[in-house]
Amino acid sequence: MAHFEPSEDIISGRTADIYFQRTLHVLEREGLNPTATMEFFPARAGIFCGIEEAKVLLSKVLSNGCAEVWALTEGELMERKEVVLRIIAPYRSYGLYETALCGLLAHQSGWATAARECAEAANDIPVVSFGARHIHPLVAAVMDYAAVVGGCRGCSTVKGAELAGLAPSGTMPHALVLTMGDTVRATEAFDKHTPPEVTRVSLVDTFRDEAEEALRVAHALGERLAMVRLDTPRERGGVTPELVREVRCRLDLAGFKHVGIFVSGGFTAERIRQFVAEKLPVDGFGVGSFISGAPPIDFTADIRALDGQAIAKRGRLPGITPNPRLRRLI
Amino acid sequence: MAHFEPSEDIISGRTADIYFQRTLHVLEREGLNPTATMEFFPARAGIFCGIEEAKVLLSKVLSNGCAEVWALTEGELMERKEVVLRIIAPYRSYGLYETALCGLLAHQSGWATAARECAEAANDIPVVSFGARHIHPLVAAVMDYAAVVGGCRGCSTVKGAELAGLAPSGTMPHALVLTMGDTVRATEAFDKHTPPEVTRVSLVDTFRDEAEEALRVAHALGERLAMVRLDTPRERGGVTPELVREVRCRLDLAGFKHVGIFVSGGFTAERIRQFVAEKLPVDGFGVGSFISGAPPIDFTADIRALDGQAIAKRGRLPGITPNPRLRRLI
Amino acid sequence: MAHFEPSEDIISGRTADIYFQRTLHVLEREGLNPTATMEFFPARAGIFCGIEEAKVLLSKVLSNGCAEVWALTEGELMERKEVVLRIIAPYRSYGLYETALCGLLAHQSGWATAARECAEAANDIPVVSFGARHIHPLVAAVMDYAAVVGGCRGCSTVKGAELAGLAPSGTMPHALVLTMGDTVRATEAFDKHTPPEVTRVSLVDTFRDEAEEALRVAHALGERLAMVRLDTPRERGGVTPELVREVRCRLDLAGFKHVGIFVSGGFTAERIRQFVAEKLPVDGFGVGSFISGAPPIDFTADIRALDGQAIAKRGRLPGITPNPRLRRLI
Amino acid sequence: MAHFEPSEDIISGRTADIYFQRTLHVLEREGLNPTATMEFFPARAGIFCGIEEAKVLLSKVLSNGCAEVWALTEGELMERKEVVLRIIAPYRSYGLYETALCGLLAHQSGWATAARECAEAANDIPVVSFGARHIHPLVAAVMDYAAVVGGCRGCSTVKGAELAGLAPSGTMPHALVLTMGDTVRATEAFDKHTPPEVTRVSLVDTFRDEAEEALRVAHALGERLAMVRLDTPRERGGVTPELVREVRCRLDLAGFKHVGIFVSGGFTAERIRQFVAEKLPVDGFGVGSFISGAPPIDFTADIRALDGQAIAKRGRLPGITPNPRLRRLI
Amino acid sequence: MAHFEPSEDIISGRTADIYFQRTLHVLEREGLNPTATMEFFPARAGIFCGIEEAKVLLSKVLSNGCAEVWALTEGELMERKEVVLRIIAPYRSYGLYETALCGLLAHQSGWATAARECAEAANDIPVVSFGARHIHPLVAAVMDYAAVVGGCRGCSTVKGAELAGLAPSGTMPHALVLTMGDTVRATEAFDKHTPPEVTRVSLVDTFRDEAEEALRVAHALGERLAMVRLDTPRERGGVTPELVREVRCRLDLAGFKHVGIFVSGGFTAERIRQFVAEKLPVDGFGVGSFISGAPPIDFTADIRALDGQAIAKRGRLPGITPNPRLRRLI
Amino acid sequence: MAHFEPSEDIISGRTADIYFQRTLHVLEREGLNPTATMEFFPARAGIFCGIEEAKVLLSKVLSNGCAEVWALTEGELMERKEVVLRIIAPYRSYGLYETALCGLLAHQSGWATAARECAEAANDIPVVSFGARHIHPLVAAVMDYAAVVGGCRGCSTVKGAELAGLAPSGTMPHALVLTMGDTVRATEAFDKHTPPEVTRVSLVDTFRDEAEEALRVAHALGERLAMVRLDTPRERGGVTPELVREVRCRLDLAGFKHVGIFVSGGFTAERIRQFVAEKLPVDGFGVGSFISGAPPIDFTADIRALDGQAIAKRGRLPGITPNPRLRRLI
Repeated sequence: MAHFEPSEDIISGRTADIYFQRTLHVLEREGLNPTATMEFFPARAGIFCGIEEAKVLLSKVLSNGCAEVWALTEGELMERKEVVLRIIAPYRSYGLYETALCGLLAHQSGWATAARECAEAANDIPVVSFGARHIHPLVAAVMDYAAVVGGCRGCSTVKGAELAGLAPSGTMPHALVLTMGDTVRATEAFDKHTPPEVTRVSLVDTFRDEAEEALRVAHALGERLAMVRLDTPRERGGVTPELVREVRCRLDLAGFKHVGIFVSGGFTAERIRQFVAEKLPVDGFGVGSFISGAPPIDFTADIRALDGQAIAKRGRLPGITPNPRLRRLI
Repeated sequence: MAHFEPSEDIISGRTADIYFQRTLHVLEREGLNPTATMEFFPARAGIFCGIEEAKVLLSKVLSNGCAEVWALTEGELMERKEVVLRIIAPYRSYGLYETALCGLLAHQSGWATAARECAEAANDIPVVSFGARHIHPLVAAVMDYAAVVGGCRGCSTVKGAELAGLAPSGTMPHALVLTMGDTVRATEAFDKHTPPEVTRVSLVDTFRDEAEEALRVAHALGERLAMVRLDTPRERGGVTPELVREVRCRLDLAGFKHVGIFVSGGFTAERIRQFVAEKLPVDGFGVGSFISGAPPIDFTADIRALDGQAIAKRGRLPGITPNPRLRRLI
Repeated sequence: MAHFEPSEDIISGRTADIYFQRTLHVLEREGLNPTATMEFFPARAGIFCGIEEAKVLLSKVLSNGCAEVWALTEGELMERKEVVLRIIAPYRSYGLYETALCGLLAHQSGWATAARECAEAANDIPVVSFGARHIHPLVAAVMDYAAVVGGCRGCSTVKGAELAGLAPSGTMPHALVLTMGDTVRATEAFDKHTPPEVTRVSLVDTFRDEAEEALRVAHALGERLAMVRLDTPRERGGVTPELVREVRCRLDLAGFKHVGIFVSGGFTAERIRQFVAEKLPVDGFGVGSFISGAPPIDFTADIRALDGQAIAKRGRLPGITPNPRLRRLI
Repeated sequence: MAHFEPSEDIISGRTADIYFQRTLHVLEREGLNPTATMEFFPARAGIFCGIEEAKVLLSKVLSNGCAEVWALTEGELMERKEVVLRIIAPYRSYGLYETALCGLLAHQSGWATAARECAEAANDIPVVSFGARHIHPLVAAVMDYAAVVGGCRGCSTVKGAELAGLAPSGTMPHALVLTMGDTVRATEAFDKHTPPEVTRVSLVDTFRDEAEEALRVAHALGERLAMVRLDTPRERGGVTPELVREVRCRLDLAGFKHVGIFVSGGFTAERIRQFVAEKLPVDGFGVGSFISGAPPIDFTADIRALDGQAIAKRGRLPGITPNPRLRRLI
Repeated sequence: MAHFEPSEDIISGRTADIYFQRTLHVLEREGLNPTATMEFFPARAGIFCGIEEAKVLLSKVLSNGCAEVWALTEGELMERKEVVLRIIAPYRSYGLYETALCGLLAHQSGWATAARECAEAANDIPVVSFGARHIHPLVAAVMDYAAVVGGCRGCSTVKGAELAGLAPSGTMPHALVLTMGDTVRATEAFDKHTPPEVTRVSLVDTFRDEAEEALRVAHALGERLAMVRLDTPRERGGVTPELVREVRCRLDLAGFKHVGIFVSGGFTAERIRQFVAEKLPVDGFGVGSFISGAPPIDFTADIRALDGQAIAKRGRLPGITPNPRLRRLI
Repeated sequence: MAHFEPSEDIISGRTADIYFQRTLHVLEREGLNPTATMEFFPARAGIFCGIEEAKVLLSKVLSNGCAEVWALTEGELMERKEVVLRIIAPYRSYGLYETALCGLLAHQSGWATAARECAEAANDIPVVSFGARHIHPLVAAVMDYAAVVGGCRGCSTVKGAELAGLAPSGTMPHALVLTMGDTVRATEAFDKHTPPEVTRVSLVDTFRDEAEEALRVAHALGERLAMVRLDTPRERGGVTPELVREVRCRLDLAGFKHVGIFVSGGFTAERIRQFVAEKLPVDGFGVGSFISGAPPIDFTADIRALDGQAIAKRGRLPGITPNPRLRRLI
């Protein structure tokens, strides 16, 4: 189970929009604290993600007994404009966290939705989240967590894997091959110094032709080699369907049918779909910025009732929006 | 000056791709630690942002005397594929941070670039970053900081404003108007309980017609009212150019020429450009997800030399890439 | 039944192309008056309209006994290039009216076709022709007649309604609300001075928020109020689906379920279709220039036989075109 | 000068929207008759046309001394949303005519604008309005009038030409050639029986090849033949640029340089522009539905002041809109 | 059966790429002559054509007994990238002919594929290849041959018809009509001097209207006239569907139901499809550059094994590609 | 100078449309042989090519003294529809060759025009015609000739080069590398057995990484190596701009600045233009099907006068078309 811990800045409201602090101050001075029913809905359909983290935050700030929280479950599909979270509590107890709640749902749902799209495109072939390098390190782990909620079978950061309850996934960076000076030498050193439970996946596009290197490392490691990774840069044509087929064919001709092929480098759901449609012999997809750089799904929070009285700002319908899918969380 | 402090997770590599930890372990066992020249370049042009935070991180991890860091300056324009950061140091001293460095540059540069686009579109009219609610609270402050580097004149989070060396900006949320039950009442209460140095900006679209409410709050606060904010929801047509002109006209007819108009709600650089091209009487733009949800600008890090020897993986040119714009940072 | 009366200018040929007058003069001097079979067909498919007016004209000018007229019925669907009218008579008795016949069929069929498109889009919800203000007053009534033939349930002009055998339809113009100074006051005055058989429909977008005004007039008139009309100008976002839903919701919450919603302002068949597809609670559509400004459907008149001999100009097929759908009119 | 005479139906309001009658009734009962300033503006730019007819109507209904009417001049260019007509008079004296005024301006301006586009495309080559057959005969004459205001050099209806102060223009219909049985015979009969001041233009596409017929009629009429008309139907390829050039070439080779070429059949401003750009030897363009079927330019009428007090409905700016181009008409 | 005879230039390699000559020279000096398995595949799907000519060439150059050739059959459908020809023989015996083999398959398959598209579009109406005038005379006959393989029922060149085992097809050129001075005179002379087994098809668009000329030649030749040909130039609108219908109608009205209509002039598969979809009374289509100027279908030849050992260049899969559709040719 | 020799089939008319033979037969029997002025014009602009071959043909068939031939010069630019060839001679002496003349001009002009487009795109970098393998071997040589007329600096066929007055150009096929088993071995053998005047260009993409092989062959041949050829297949990304830059960079770093880079594989004028715009270090472009598979430029031949009398078929202008650019050829 994911173990989230809201930072002190979030709890203290330092990452909230300043006007919520001022609003609380005004209401306090005016002696007002109505029980407010607030509903949250997304701007587009997707995978609902972030409620685990939200729950931790709300549990900390809402008083026992006088608050209700209803929500969809982490990882469920949500419709456009569907109410996915409803809080009923004295406004001053949680008004400050509107910014944080909308924000964490937005970002996590954006990541999970993109991951789901990849996972569905990949059918049963594992997709691994490799996108930490494209976003700020403060959210790398939570992104990896959301990617796994969305459907990734693994992720590359230690902390992200921890949140998701998995072991982190990794192959071999170009830096290792370059510093070792040769692909076979790097692979052998990796094999020698890495615990046996770590899968051996050799990166084969650094120095020579991919097919040639694949055969070289296969000969060197034999049965211990699980996969080769193709990450051919765009400057060299990228990882084409034909390259995958050719490496497979040459490995098979040389008797290395047990060596899988892992591909990475600019993969998107669309490109995965094409690879799967062509029935390419791929054994794993590494996906980076398509997931980690996915646009957040904006959430809106609306007060729909005050002290039980239906109300709404212009443009919204007053009163609670019925949604039988919501389950009580707090 | 921004005061960044890298989190423990970043320093310890828990947010890094796991294969860098493994690489360091292999190299250590092999007794290798070449001086590696690593160059970073972006996948598209934009505003270079994040180097201040990167500098703090690198200062912590690089040993004195045996490392050089060269880079562009925070906020400078960068070309597509231009080398904007070069590190020359023993590989094992910084190899672990490739993930974090690429990530923070990517995210911050993405935000700063979108902010710059808005600021240029807005000409001299202030743009304020209001997008914290669309991203994870862990990066809300750093996003606000980058938005200000890009050209925003203000931002809504307390911590973001602190990083950027400004006071936070805010108006009044719908929640205040709804809980107070009337726009005039809410505005008067805000005026009464808020320190005088905070600008009075009344939100006028909650209950009644915007033009009607604008006149009501102007009559109520008189000279103390600085601006009204229009945030009309899409369901009611959004903030149209004609609405702005009409509110201006009605305020002027009633003698409230001193009351400015602040607009928000789905603004993008393109829409700001249209408003400015039509010379609309706008006194401030609040921009949300166009900046905070802007796609990161992916960065690539390449080893180009080892112990002074030009080298590169296939697809890249071996050797240092000359760039006279770089300045020595460390 | 429609009672058309051709104007003196039409009868005398003053609105005809001059060359028909000259042709008749030449033929007379040459002593020629062959029995000409003339066929009329439209340039595109649509609703055939105008034959009632054409019949009145032809009855006046064709001599008894030596003429046949065959046509489709008013309001029938016609195919592109289908022969919809055939006249067999001495050429000099009707040659002068080719201009008028083509013209009235073209214009009326154009209007009826657009009206049919709206009526089909609206399903069972009434569509009312409100477009008199977009065309010359000399044809406003005949346009309204054609709109009703096409499927409108009402129209706004007195004479048009008379031709169509209906009572004219109307709500309340902005001018009444403006001159009375308040929506409620205007609605009450209208209610007081207007005969009881006229439906009470209050226009609620002139001064204040539509939802607010709808509640005010509903409270003022109670059971006597049949509908509110939403005609929000484009400058204020127009009549959006969400506005309709919101007004409905607020009326219902306040107990005014009997008050209907009539919408107008730039409606087209396409927009009606969208409203109906979204199952919006609309009780009537007012349609203006989509019907009244609809392009005429050009008609062509061809001589296909002379004194029983098949003939045709180049590009046309000589001889009568069989069409079993034609019925004898004269 | 055009001599317009509003019909009795227009004067009595039978072609007006019924709700204006009801409004006048309510105001009368309420004893209200404020001096209303009403402004009219078009939905798009074009040629302003209809004010002559509007002036006749307003002169009939406005009382002397207590009314002002300001407007642009017939045939002037108007901008989108420019105020082109302003009436200041007791509301009840003219409120009934809002429908008719908007309508006649809309229709006439639509026609004049399309005619202007053709005239500009044609450079100095005359354009003649031939579109009466595509619209209702009640507006054929006023359409021809507007076409001449827009730039046509002639028109085909007797009454339209009268309004425009010209002699009507015409050539020869296919009906004459068909009933006479031969192009040369028809042309000779026309020549024999038509007054000498009427230009001889022979239609040469009815029975045989256009080039062949052109030579035959040129030989038959010699110097008396002014032009041939090409109106080749679309079924035979229409009037192509190459056909015009070929007929010109063959006429010249045979010594008939004095015989001009008049073209018609589906001409639009765009096609005229192409013909002129190719410098085709055309001596006249007949234009039909491009002008007569042109979409009306919708006009809006707004009350902007009542008894001198600025007012406006939501979405419009209260008060008189300054426009120095307006001249006082009444 | 087609009787192909490779030219001396082809046999001697003078039309081959020079580097094959040099390769053979190098291999000879090195004493190498491995048995090479070469496979040919097309870049896109189409009709496989040229194998008859290829077989003649290969029969001449391959030694008996030590060579195998496998291929699809002339005129079969081939898939994109399908192996359609496989040669297994000592490399030096056929390496020189890679250029010629690829080239003749490419060109012939291109022509046959375009012809097939026309034939399918035309349903059962004959299509005749008339495109010799758009390509070099050296390949006119082989193009006509390929067109017949693709589905044409005839072709215009003597030698092409010979290769295809047919009598050549032709009607009458404009030159004959022009030099004879009249269509009827030309048709009568043709009829008088041409052997009776040649079909009489009169070209009717040279001097006068097509419909008029069709009737004239039908009257002149009576039962001996098989068809009229319409080839109206684009300058006169081309051969429109309506022209075909009109000529048919006028011929029928005059009792010439036995006279067919042959059309030509810019016909493409698409235009044939439209004519057939409209059920036009066409009795034959003459097709020119759509077939003769069709783009060749590029072929690639790959060595996949040497002396029985699977091999391939980078980017291709080593070893024989199984294709059960191939039949042994040599 | 090119030495063309028309084949016997062309001279005897066996490759002509059959109806010309029949026409000559009819005219002979009728005793007609008017002096015909025939003009040829292209359907689109391009490079005029084929007149040298046409001249040889016409010289053979036209009688001395009673014929004139006027034309543009081989390789000149021609406009769309410009008259580029005019023959004045007794019709029966050349009527049979209309098919061949149109065809050879069409095909050769099509090739030359495509070649010119490449040559202009390439600026001063040589373009070599490598397209023989994509067209029938009977026209491979004449295609290469036309390509050189259009601007290619070399071509690959022996006979084509002969016609163009050049030595044939070639590098090394994949077949040589495959049969020799290694790129360096193949290059060394080529170097050993090939006359010294042939440029040494080594093909480096067959077995290993292009950059690696380039360095290997450069080391092997040293100063004798003129260029490497990159022909990377699409399956491996094709020849990307970055590949060219990288190979250049690695050759330079290793001291092989004298070794040029020749590229081939799917090059079009557009792609050449992009390479040149990026200032890539390319020393030669090999172009195949873009030139050899270029669409022919259709030519039309029209009789414009007979025995000095202007005449033309419908759709064309009678009489000679003046063109001062024509020069007398015969």
